[in-house]
Amino acid sequence: MSTEEKKEAPETPAPAPAPKEVRCIVLTGFGGPKMARCQKRPQTPAQEGEVLIRVKACGVSFQDIMVRQGVLEHAPKTPLVMGFECAGEVEALGENTSGFNIGDRVIGFCDYKAWSEVVAIPAQFVYKMPENMSFQDGAALPMSYLTAYILLFDIANLRQGQSVFTHSVGGGVGIAVTQLCHMMEDVKLFGTASYQKHETVKANVDHLFDHVVDYPQEVRKLSPEGVDIFLDCLCGEDANKGISLLKPMGKYILYGSSNIVTGETKSFFSFAKSWWQVDKISPIKLYDENKTIAGFQLRTLLHKQGQHQYIREIMNKLIKLYSDGKIRPVIDSAWAFEDVGEAMQKMQDRKNIGKIILDPTIEPKPKPVSPARTHTTSQCSEDKETAEDQQ
Amino acid sequence: MSTEEKKEAPETPAPAPAPKEVRCIVLTGFGGPKMARCQKRPQTPAQEGEVLIRVKACGVSFQDIMVRQGVLEHAPKTPLVMGFECAGEVEALGENTSGFNIGDRVIGFCDYKAWSEVVAIPAQFVYKMPENMSFQDGAALPMSYLTAYILLFDIANLRQGQSVFTHSVGGGVGIAVTQLCHMMEDVKLFGTASYQKHETVKANVDHLFDHVVDYPQEVRKLSPEGVDIFLDCLCGEDANKGISLLKPMGKYILYGSSNIVTGETKSFFSFAKSWWQVDKISPIKLYDENKTIAGFQLRTLLHKQGQHQYIREIMNKLIKLYSDGKIRPVIDSAWAFEDVGEAMQKMQDRKNIGKIILDPTIEPKPKPVSPARTHTTSQCSEDKETAEDQQ
Repeated sequence: MSTEEKKEAPETPAPAPAPKEVRCIVLTGFGGPKMARCQKRPQTPAQEGEVLIRVKACGVSFQDIMVRQGVLEHAPKTPLVMGFECAGEVEALGENTSGFNIGDRVIGFCDYKAWSEVVAIPAQFVYKMPENMSFQDGAALPMSYLTAYILLFDIANLRQGQSVFTHSVGGGVGIAVTQLCHMMEDVKLFGTASYQKHETVKANVDHLFDHVVDYPQEVRKLSPEGVDIFLDCLCGEDANKGISLLKPMGKYILYGSSNIVTGETKSFFSFAKSWWQVDKISPIKLYDENKTIAGFQLRTLLHKQGQHQYIREIMNKLIKLYSDGKIRPVIDSAWAFEDVGEAMQKMQDRKNIGKIILDPTIEPKPKPVSPARTHTTSQCSEDKETAEDQQ
Repeated sequence: MSTEEKKEAPETPAPAPAPKEVRCIVLTGFGGPKMARCQKRPQTPAQEGEVLIRVKACGVSFQDIMVRQGVLEHAPKTPLVMGFECAGEVEALGENTSGFNIGDRVIGFCDYKAWSEVVAIPAQFVYKMPENMSFQDGAALPMSYLTAYILLFDIANLRQGQSVFTHSVGGGVGIAVTQLCHMMEDVKLFGTASYQKHETVKANVDHLFDHVVDYPQEVRKLSPEGVDIFLDCLCGEDANKGISLLKPMGKYILYGSSNIVTGETKSFFSFAKSWWQVDKISPIKLYDENKTIAGFQLRTLLHKQGQHQYIREIMNKLIKLYSDGKIRPVIDSAWAFEDVGEAMQKMQDRKNIGKIILDPTIEPKPKPVSPARTHTTSQCSEDKETAEDQQ
């Protein structure tokens, strides 16, 4: 308080208050890790029906990498504030916003803009958190646990005694899938993970394979008939492999296309390949073989197809499961906004086990100062872009 | 007893007993209604693991018409005893057949041969009937209710508040679907039926359309978003229509191809058309649209894919629902074996409301005697085929 008072000259008229600024992570153009950077932006107030959230933790998911590379369909224009999920405290409410009070601890699941110190989100995408839930756990729920729950319990209709195959059992969705499967009796889990994660995640699944092995062959050795449920976040030729691994009455669900991401930036080759490699299927073939194939994309469902009531029902179930101790997000690491590039790179390199979190309140890692530059990338910059950044 | 004694000549050595003969419905060749005829055949004893059933009622389903016309894949060779489902009393048990006693009232679900006075069926396809279930109701359960239950509660995972579209709401599966949907709260049912059935079946569904109207357009008028679950027994261009009518998270299931059947006998044109009209679909399209497509064929599942334990679990649930008064087969009519041609024609003409039953114990309808023939088609013939039949 005293610092502020000293700065003001008491005799001159008060200047118009400068607009409040908040730190956020801005995608300055599609490309590599440097394109996502911490910048200051004017704070947007809560509009009608919106909840203004003081953000305490943000979730990072593989889709953020795809956004950064510009490989998502209907990619938004840059610059944009990134991020789909966050948790924090309600700081203000827009007009006609009901169901929330100032100070409520909440989860927000928005269509971009979540990676910000303060964000305004329409109330239909905001969910109250229970007292015993940390902000990091709250931010880890939407993308991973909603996806896993809907895949297993709505689309696949998992039953006792069935078998489930899932890729990337060390990732956010993978961990959620294993926890939700363990709630059911006698579910057999097959999964892949990078070899270096095996020690940590092997207890979560019955049969664990390396990403690089011929997993259909390995599964057939253990279960000649295949699996009941195949969850595919890779796409490309893995789609055909997954469908061929189904038992009678088996269900294949495509819920991601991370095979598109092969290098630091967008690769037109891997983009095209992950499409042309996927075989089209006739419903008559499914009829002959008693199989189901499905596709699921959570953000499309919520933000393009308007199914927020359905998503809220699932979120309420997840919050109950959390309160009952049935599910518990695994947090890999928490990072400062300034270190977002490094945080995303860890995920892209498949080195995380569990959720990567961005926390606007923590200090960036100390970086070696480069004499050739006036600022390091670990400092939060003003809302300016250099020509270099845009390349 | 006295009749038998009179026939025997007491002084001559007893002749080898003539093999017992049973009346059954034999498909003498693929074609029209005349190709299925009542004939006498030697009774087969129960082999190891089999249950010998004295049949009291048999179910007719649309697949029997497809068998007769020879339009099913992997069609068996003629002549063959037709029929997939029956109910009756256990008359004998083969060696090492456990779980049943002589006199048990049972349902049999076999791979052909059900339409016979006596049939031997492997025990894994036989289910005990509760005391309060009639033989006709028992024979009406397997093909219709197992299909409807698996479509709705395993594959589609029907939830409260959803909408379901089904063709042929007056048919066996259609009636089962409506009854099972009514067990759930707040399920909205759309369906088609021939106009002349509307008075009878309109109470079962919320919105009923004639078979011949542009039903996708009619559904869109009432529910612009479409439906949650689309059950398709027609195939052909109706497959594409069904998939296009799905809401986000909607599920389309192909479970029949009755569009193949257009005339009295096999039509290569309608056979081919019902295949080439069905669009192949990429899993990526399902991913973009949040949709599920599936195929289901009960007999394949049971007899080719060996899922008899799964089917038994569902049958146990259905028997419980029957005992609780939650489901009740609707019997359209019961026919003598000799009248099978007429019975099947009624189904092919879509004139039945509910299940058509064949009953080996009832008398055939009186037929006008044709002076040009030595026997009428309504008399059970010996196991002979005339050149005329084979044409």
